Amino acid sequence: LDAIIKWNEGLQFKGSGWSNHGVTIDTDPSHDGLGQGPSPVELLLMSVAGCTGMDVVSILNKMKVKYDRFEIGITGERAEEHPRLYHNMTLVYQIWGADIDEKKFNKAIDLSMNRYCTVSNTLKQGIDINYRYEVNPENEMEVES
Amino acid sequence: LDAIIKWNEGLQFKGSGWSNHGVTIDTDPSHDGLGQGPSPVELLLMSVAGCTGMDVVSILNKMKVKYDRFEIGITGERAEEHPRLYHNMTLVYQIWGADIDEKKFNKAIDLSMNRYCTVSNTLKQGIDINYRYEVNPENEMEVES
Repeated sequence: LDAIIKWNEGLQFKGSGWSNHGVTIDTDPSHDGLGQGPSPVELLLMSVAGCTGMDVVSILNKMKVKYDRFEIGITGERAEEHPRLYHNMTLVYQIWGADIDEKKFNKAIDLSMNRYCTVSNTLKQGIDINYRYEVNPENEMEVES
Repeated sequence: LDAIIKWNEGLQFKGSGWSNHGVTIDTDPSHDGLGQGPSPVELLLMSVAGCTGMDVVSILNKMKVKYDRFEIGITGERAEEHPRLYHNMTLVYQIWGADIDEKKFNKAIDLSMNRYCTVSNTLKQGIDINYRYEVNPENEMEVES
């Protein structure tokens, strides 16, 4: 098996995959969880962002593009009725540095989204995934709870 | 935004979603990571298992089914060529207890997979997700690295 999750208490599970790093999967006390870890849906969104983020870092490194800071925000639109499917997700790539080549940054993102990223391309078989990018933006991204 | 990941070092990102629980997303040193957290693909698999796992626990609780132990293993088949898409995933639900009603267990899984689980149903728009279940199995599931 590639990963196993083990029920702990309440709705909390302890998960681990082939790299053997443990993850606590949980939900808010208002939903009968213990509130000690991210929810499965948050993990899904972070999985998408992490997958393309690693690709972009690898590609920028190969392109010799230097940067000081790199962040990705992700948001999705879900159906109201169960199972509250995601219809789409939108990624926002922000990068900071004195000498960012915008074309190369765009190319790196494009290569990830259309060629390398396992997670987003697996999802794109069923839903829309859009993105935009910002070079040296002034606004800080924030998670809305 | 629903979640943000911030590049830290190497291929490592720190992620956080609306519940504000941090996750380290990383990969093996053999792939230029620091080896300090699960990979995005492992997070995807744990997200699927965690989503349906929480549903099943909730439904079993409503059905007054008592159990001592509950685990879910997940494995997937990926394409060889980039982006190494998942074609399918298989879930193995194992439950232990002196008085498990197998029909109720099956019903709980079926309700999750076909009605409640956001993550698996989002993925099922593009790939096949299969499952089987085992009541009081003797075999221990293991992750193969």
